[in-house]
Amino acid sequence: MTKIHKIPDVVIKRLPIYLRYLQQLMERDIDTVSSQQMGEDLNLNPAQIRKDLSIFGDFGVKGMGYRVTELAEKLISILGLDKQINIALVGVGNLGAALCQYNRYQNTSTKIVAIFDGHPAKVGQKIGNLVVHPMEDLSKVVKELNIKMAIIAVPAQAAQGVADQLIDCGIKVILNFAPTLIQVPPGIKVQNADVTTELQSLAYYL
Amino acid sequence: MTKIHKIPDVVIKRLPIYLRYLQQLMERDIDTVSSQQMGEDLNLNPAQIRKDLSIFGDFGVKGMGYRVTELAEKLISILGLDKQINIALVGVGNLGAALCQYNRYQNTSTKIVAIFDGHPAKVGQKIGNLVVHPMEDLSKVVKELNIKMAIIAVPAQAAQGVADQLIDCGIKVILNFAPTLIQVPPGIKVQNADVTTELQSLAYYL
Repeated sequence: MTKIHKIPDVVIKRLPIYLRYLQQLMERDIDTVSSQQMGEDLNLNPAQIRKDLSIFGDFGVKGMGYRVTELAEKLISILGLDKQINIALVGVGNLGAALCQYNRYQNTSTKIVAIFDGHPAKVGQKIGNLVVHPMEDLSKVVKELNIKMAIIAVPAQAAQGVADQLIDCGIKVILNFAPTLIQVPPGIKVQNADVTTELQSLAYYL
Repeated sequence: MTKIHKIPDVVIKRLPIYLRYLQQLMERDIDTVSSQQMGEDLNLNPAQIRKDLSIFGDFGVKGMGYRVTELAEKLISILGLDKQINIALVGVGNLGAALCQYNRYQNTSTKIVAIFDGHPAKVGQKIGNLVVHPMEDLSKVVKELNIKMAIIAVPAQAAQGVADQLIDCGIKVILNFAPTLIQVPPGIKVQNADVTTELQSLAYYL
């Protein structure tokens, strides 16, 4: 499908939440759901949900709500989750290794398929069914496995260098767990997932 | 200081990023910085930065930019990071244990000071310098250690029960790594940090 441009990032971030909810309804054989009910179950404003979903088309049926399966399929297609998305993870310290294990048990189309580390002592180690590659293999493995996305889980001081290498290999989308901001050229999407800044911003609400 | 109300969550989320950047400048003995320079270094729009910071007061000096130390101190005060914030972590599987280790090495005022798990086999284990408590001790430990915030890192099906217990103990702010949304009463702040939904929303940008 043609991508609709200029959709705010905050809307895109909510789509997987809608999708997971709809998939839970499907498991319970529920065919339709109102935005009111979705709002209650998801702690979101129903008007917000209707506005978000209307960007992508007219999925609601008057007096009936949304058709669950149809809407779930549409969201899968919008997000591009109808095929497996191969992910490289760089940095298999505590956090990286945990992310890798966690990803293995999630039934999702976003799959970590290769792991890398810059420390020679880590190379060759196994995490689940994956063997840690040296950074020198990055370009080759990214091509071989058709990897499109990467997770950075290295220390702050190594993050920019890793990001540069990933971008050189053609990676366009990065989830960054390193506690630092990385500089990227236009056209590259970086999402920061640094736990420390999350906790610090939450401190405001105390 | 009196909290200014109705500040958008997206602004609050950027404040720790500004703060870390300013602290990096302080380490390099840089006294002032322009919003232009901040924008370049942080990959953010300078007008956005000026707008964000103007909510909290007039920190800029014409032709000179922001006074780095003054602005950093103000952000620390706004976020409430001028004192240690004690955090409980529930769930010490791979991810929980990694978050705990990670937090130990971050020089930050948001500190995991107690860890809990519902599995008897985990209770009594040590992660770094912390011993895993049984869930039965939650209320007692939260009071004893003056814990204000919690991290949930349990499987999806256990998350709501854990959240309910935390809220019963007086916890008002939760960072939720479980791959599910939790329902909370008004006045409780939950931030979702589920890695799977992060990856799924990033798939859109491929």
